[in-house]
Amino acid sequence: MSDTREQILEQIKVQGDLVRQLKAAKESKEKCATFQTAPSGGGRVSSSGAPAQRQQQQQPQKQQQAQEQQQHEQLHQIDEEVARLLALKATLGGDAAPTNQKFTLKTPKGTRDYGPQQMTLRQGVLDKIVQVFKRHGGEAIDTPVFELKEVLTGKYGEDSKLIYDLKDQGGEILSMRYDLTVPLARYLAMNKISSIKRYHIAKVYRRDNPAMTKGRYREFYQCDFDIAGTYDPMLPDAECVKIVSEILDTLDIGDYVIKLNHRQLLDGMFQACGVPADSFRTICSAVDKLDKSPWADVRKEMVDEKGLDEAAADRIGEYVRLSGGAELVEQLLADEKLKAVPNAVKGLEGMKQLLKYCSIFGLDKRVSFDLSLARGLDYYTGVIYEGVLKGESATVASPAKTSQQNGEQANEPATVGSVAGGGRYDNLVGMFDPRGKAVPCVGVSIGVERIFSVLEARAAASGLKLRTSDVEVYVASAHKGLHEQRLKVLNLLWDAGVKAEHSYKLNPKLLVQLQHCEEHQIPLVVVLGDAELAQGLVKLREVTTREETNVKLEDLAAEIRRRQQSSA
Amino acid sequence: MSDTREQILEQIKVQGDLVRQLKAAKESKEKCATFQTAPSGGGRVSSSGAPAQRQQQQQPQKQQQAQEQQQHEQLHQIDEEVARLLALKATLGGDAAPTNQKFTLKTPKGTRDYGPQQMTLRQGVLDKIVQVFKRHGGEAIDTPVFELKEVLTGKYGEDSKLIYDLKDQGGEILSMRYDLTVPLARYLAMNKISSIKRYHIAKVYRRDNPAMTKGRYREFYQCDFDIAGTYDPMLPDAECVKIVSEILDTLDIGDYVIKLNHRQLLDGMFQACGVPADSFRTICSAVDKLDKSPWADVRKEMVDEKGLDEAAADRIGEYVRLSGGAELVEQLLADEKLKAVPNAVKGLEGMKQLLKYCSIFGLDKRVSFDLSLARGLDYYTGVIYEGVLKGESATVASPAKTSQQNGEQANEPATVGSVAGGGRYDNLVGMFDPRGKAVPCVGVSIGVERIFSVLEARAAASGLKLRTSDVEVYVASAHKGLHEQRLKVLNLLWDAGVKAEHSYKLNPKLLVQLQHCEEHQIPLVVVLGDAELAQGLVKLREVTTREETNVKLEDLAAEIRRRQQSSA
Repeated sequence: MSDTREQILEQIKVQGDLVRQLKAAKESKEKCATFQTAPSGGGRVSSSGAPAQRQQQQQPQKQQQAQEQQQHEQLHQIDEEVARLLALKATLGGDAAPTNQKFTLKTPKGTRDYGPQQMTLRQGVLDKIVQVFKRHGGEAIDTPVFELKEVLTGKYGEDSKLIYDLKDQGGEILSMRYDLTVPLARYLAMNKISSIKRYHIAKVYRRDNPAMTKGRYREFYQCDFDIAGTYDPMLPDAECVKIVSEILDTLDIGDYVIKLNHRQLLDGMFQACGVPADSFRTICSAVDKLDKSPWADVRKEMVDEKGLDEAAADRIGEYVRLSGGAELVEQLLADEKLKAVPNAVKGLEGMKQLLKYCSIFGLDKRVSFDLSLARGLDYYTGVIYEGVLKGESATVASPAKTSQQNGEQANEPATVGSVAGGGRYDNLVGMFDPRGKAVPCVGVSIGVERIFSVLEARAAASGLKLRTSDVEVYVASAHKGLHEQRLKVLNLLWDAGVKAEHSYKLNPKLLVQLQHCEEHQIPLVVVLGDAELAQGLVKLREVTTREETNVKLEDLAAEIRRRQQSSA
Repeated sequence: MSDTREQILEQIKVQGDLVRQLKAAKESKEKCATFQTAPSGGGRVSSSGAPAQRQQQQQPQKQQQAQEQQQHEQLHQIDEEVARLLALKATLGGDAAPTNQKFTLKTPKGTRDYGPQQMTLRQGVLDKIVQVFKRHGGEAIDTPVFELKEVLTGKYGEDSKLIYDLKDQGGEILSMRYDLTVPLARYLAMNKISSIKRYHIAKVYRRDNPAMTKGRYREFYQCDFDIAGTYDPMLPDAECVKIVSEILDTLDIGDYVIKLNHRQLLDGMFQACGVPADSFRTICSAVDKLDKSPWADVRKEMVDEKGLDEAAADRIGEYVRLSGGAELVEQLLADEKLKAVPNAVKGLEGMKQLLKYCSIFGLDKRVSFDLSLARGLDYYTGVIYEGVLKGESATVASPAKTSQQNGEQANEPATVGSVAGGGRYDNLVGMFDPRGKAVPCVGVSIGVERIFSVLEARAAASGLKLRTSDVEVYVASAHKGLHEQRLKVLNLLWDAGVKAEHSYKLNPKLLVQLQHCEEHQIPLVVVLGDAELAQGLVKLREVTTREETNVKLEDLAAEIRRRQQSSA
């Protein structure tokens, strides 16, 4: 039943959009027609004042006639589509209930609400991530959710088409932030900050194809940690890898690997394989697809779409299947083709140092030097990395509630791969500085939405319900007429810092109150009754054991604290 | 110097906007001209293929000629303005440095970045607020930053013009949320939730005139707590007042008063004064201005602009100067005019009950029943309240850093008044429900931006610098060649959960490292040296006392924990 309703609502939405488009198209033509008829002066408006469109005229007005015909047709089409829309709406109001809402009740495509359960899970994840960021000395910053459009222009390559623009309502032209990296670069350049270790947890916006069960949204959280400043090679870079591993460990999300590579090595490798220098970036973005597509497809893209020489593609194919550790660096440093290319050698030496530091950080089994890792964004200039869940850990459950699947792509397997990514970008800040002064940066972004998906799926599978409030004590009435007494006790508890609540009914039934506590996993109940109150006492009841003790009112807060400490 | 630069950058911005507008205007005319010339067919394009505009033609083309003239003038104007823009830019690039950024580096008008200092302050405030919300059993929810435009339509009255719309990029028509109340109502109706106690802390967006030193922004945080559900009168309402007082107390922001009033009483009062029923809302929004304007101005607005009878206005004037406590309720219940109006009596009886509960909550000295309180938004149906800072507490400092004052209104006195507000809105959820099913709600919103302003001003005046990172230990090298040892010690500390950092230089000077600790108020330093390391020892130094002790490497983390606990 409700599915059918959902479908009709969706149809109404689509139909409504169509009608709006038709009307808008008509209006814009009319506006231009006004421009056109106005300067052409007298003779076209009849003496009766009827609009020119209604009149038949000769030769030079042939187009006029055609235009009128077109307008009539257009009006007819709009009428027809409006009728269809009204018909759809009528199917909904079946039982003649008054409908005061004329649109589908939903969140925008690719977005979702977080209810208390999801928020509890989300807050838990974010708290753990912040703990790691702070353990490494991170300072928090925040920037506006939108930027001047120019700030974002030219930073994302092909992905720029996914940027949300704001309507021009007079004043500045604005766009929603696409990531937290470009705003950071703008912030550093604007405030002339040459070194900072900052974290930033905030939502970003991409008009992408959502796949919500996989944690791919149009509005989603990013958790970024970046180290800006001129430092010695690989020391900040290795710490970012360490941070990723600490976060994935603390979230206990399952087995993972952190893939490492180096943009300089990639460029050197392309050069060694005979790729022309001006094709490095486009070939690089083809390589980036290797995590989703087989080599044969990627090779086809390189050769057929990007015009790469077949032999060059095959040489790339040899390299990108390699992955390993320090021994692979040595092997490649000895590679005849690579060692002739300075960029390749520099990249390899960087990798050698990075792997050594990772080894000191105890990450030998967590990192993998992987020549197929390329990453999409243009702005990386050095180390790049990606944290990927392995096997089982990457699986998320079958679709969650329908109401949360706005605009979901169908038929996608519900697995998440990459849950963290980042790299070095030494030139981005310089793009904002009026004198081009560069501030080298390296950073990492945690893909928390995917992590939420995995953890939500796991929670759903276990059937476990998270507590969504922290209430420690419920204040209940044993009989009628005690609501003011309840308020007094509550006030005493709140002032002592105890988390407490009660029924907002004057005379709730005791059973209902006790059930509320069981449902909401509230550990303690204070039960008020005239008999006890007359002696300055209240009953304190443990919800799980149902044990009850009389406690003096003035000792109540302290007694509750004592119980909490002993049960903690 | 930098001021002049700022000014020029601002001029460039303005000039740039002008040029863009001119170009846009020209383009839109050309587009229409294309529509116009296309259907008119041959004869207008010369055989040489030159565009029609360049040709002189007779009679029916007179307009054509005028149009050409206009276009020429327009082009000339654009050229002139572009030249002016380039000249402005040239004044900046004085020393011939290459400029790779062609726009002013700023955040959008009415928005600001939060640097580490501001974030530390902000996080402290938000944490305290959340603590209060949780003490009252609040559950968190979150909603998308934008909604379908239709969700916001018709909810804000006159203020709707301040809503930010997104550009139509195909698909749904979206707007940025204006508050957190309408999204809550949408959420409740969409998920058929009939009772919840929820809090929501998030940014909202209003294209208002910013006054940033007073904490009035276009992007700003709201901290809302709302109780939805069908309950007995004034029990949830009184708890909201209690929550406001707990928050203002815990933030220690100075003396304040919570003004209380009731929409039903206001309506009853208007009726008793002879205001026609269809003018209640507009007269109410005039009364709302009494916190900023004297009665004389408000009276003028009622009489001159809103056509109210002078005698009626004077009768209102008698009432709105009244404020007090329970005794005022009694006085008004005995008022001849009011007691004849059922709405007034109902409102007064509600106030009586509310004041009684507030008294039980120990708020007698904090609340004031104030008949001049009206509140702007249309959707309130019952109790309304507003927390206001008194005297000194309301003053904020003179302007902060210039870079943070985008689009500031000049000449406004830097005081903040209202820091919390809310009320009961019983019909809003019903506006979203397809069957109009109502969910009564009451809630409060904390104006944290104003609170930040006051606290920032206070911090600036005291000269106190907040610590912006939590680093407990700095790991330093006493001499060269120890960077790998540092990484080993850091790894040990991180794995033990200690917040630690080091220099990202291979061989930093010891003095520089120690200075870093003093500047950043890091309490402890681990100093590594070959002599100690050979014995499995490191030096642990207290930064303030400069006391040093040798500690075994394997005891280091435990020793640090021990010191923290004793200093806490």
